[in-house]
Amino acid sequence: MCELLGMSANVPTDICFSFKGLKERGGRTGPHKDGWGVAFYENKGVCTFKDALPSYQSEIARLVSDYPIKSCAVIAHVRQANRGRVALENTHPFSRELWGRYWTYAHNGQLSDYQQLPVDRFTPVGTTDSERAFCYLLSALDKRYPDKPPSRKVAFKFIQRQCKTLQKLGVFNMLLTDGEYLLTYCSTKLHWITRRAPFGMARLSDVDVDIDFSRETTPDDVVTIIATEPLTNNEQWHQMQSGESQLFRYGEALA
Amino acid sequence: MCELLGMSANVPTDICFSFKGLKERGGRTGPHKDGWGVAFYENKGVCTFKDALPSYQSEIARLVSDYPIKSCAVIAHVRQANRGRVALENTHPFSRELWGRYWTYAHNGQLSDYQQLPVDRFTPVGTTDSERAFCYLLSALDKRYPDKPPSRKVAFKFIQRQCKTLQKLGVFNMLLTDGEYLLTYCSTKLHWITRRAPFGMARLSDVDVDIDFSRETTPDDVVTIIATEPLTNNEQWHQMQSGESQLFRYGEALA
Repeated sequence: MCELLGMSANVPTDICFSFKGLKERGGRTGPHKDGWGVAFYENKGVCTFKDALPSYQSEIARLVSDYPIKSCAVIAHVRQANRGRVALENTHPFSRELWGRYWTYAHNGQLSDYQQLPVDRFTPVGTTDSERAFCYLLSALDKRYPDKPPSRKVAFKFIQRQCKTLQKLGVFNMLLTDGEYLLTYCSTKLHWITRRAPFGMARLSDVDVDIDFSRETTPDDVVTIIATEPLTNNEQWHQMQSGESQLFRYGEALA
Repeated sequence: MCELLGMSANVPTDICFSFKGLKERGGRTGPHKDGWGVAFYENKGVCTFKDALPSYQSEIARLVSDYPIKSCAVIAHVRQANRGRVALENTHPFSRELWGRYWTYAHNGQLSDYQQLPVDRFTPVGTTDSERAFCYLLSALDKRYPDKPPSRKVAFKFIQRQCKTLQKLGVFNMLLTDGEYLLTYCSTKLHWITRRAPFGMARLSDVDVDIDFSRETTPDDVVTIIATEPLTNNEQWHQMQSGESQLFRYGEALA
């Protein structure tokens, strides 16, 4: 399987601390050694770093964990291959443009009969079940709203419903963002935490690193971190239930 | 304006040497301080590093110039903004998926009346003339071959003809690749060089760096570098003419 990491924030925030934890699971404290990737949004633009190497050995991952790239929406993934060989084209996250925005997605799980999922406008480049499911979601969205949906929130609500269909094919934990909204879907395992004032200390589970968020933030900051497994061992994470989905925008969970 | 850099090779080759030269033009020896980017293909997969900072100051650019990422097809760009503000979404190269492959593109020049260029399936995310022209090219390609062209070479020949239309709107120097083929189009300025055995020494123009390619290569390697201005001062580069275009594949210029 794989591990997911996401961030939604109301001010550009770096993900160095959380990524340091995730990166260790990419081959050292976890078995996810078959590539990794992370996508950072800056307004409508997105920059994605990817590597088919284990993240704990990757020079690029080292840069990402040390160099504070500030963003309001981030999706990261470490991979343990099941469907699709170890290759850059099978490395998450995946991105596509629709309606003049980049949509970025990562998946944890395994699907059966995924080759039957109809894709139309969006074609997979690699051979994973994950990318096929992403192309299915965006193709379905484009088909449902050929002239754009009334709002992006409506688009995300539509995707939430499609995720229920995908869950029937197997394990489908997912993160999807357009740089402003970030959608989570839990089929078996996904946790999130929202940090806001008063900020405190946090300690990573996978490596001996502490952070005092009160030194790194302003009182108005709201930052949500989503991860397959909690990344810290001294904070209370919200555990999502099977079939539960949650939409975030600028750090806040939306109703 | 901007500067372009491309590579087409028959074996995975790093672009550290050439990128070291280009990166200096991004704010130090050249005025192209408004962002930079580089896309590396690994078979059908692509990884794109981008930054809206000047490349000569960018930590990410330093990594790219020092860390040998091996690829058979690379496109890089340093930007001096004219159309479109300095922002990640306006930073080249741009990528889109079509027919299950990623197409990646960068442009040097400036176009008038570019808002009139019809785009259909592909919508610009940013506000540059460059990205609009890219969306125009891919939309036209998709419209011409709704069920895929008979070969990708045919697709590139079609794009070559569309480039002539774009040249009528202003200055249009361009690189476009699908990871296997790499197309160049010259409207005012573009140079290329093919290096093959016997390999010799090369010296960068923009920074005091030499390389002995005979130590870095095997006798069968064929590597073509394309750049706005020659990057070395002791080799003979081929200067392209206005309206000339050249398709490369695995380092070789195709007829």
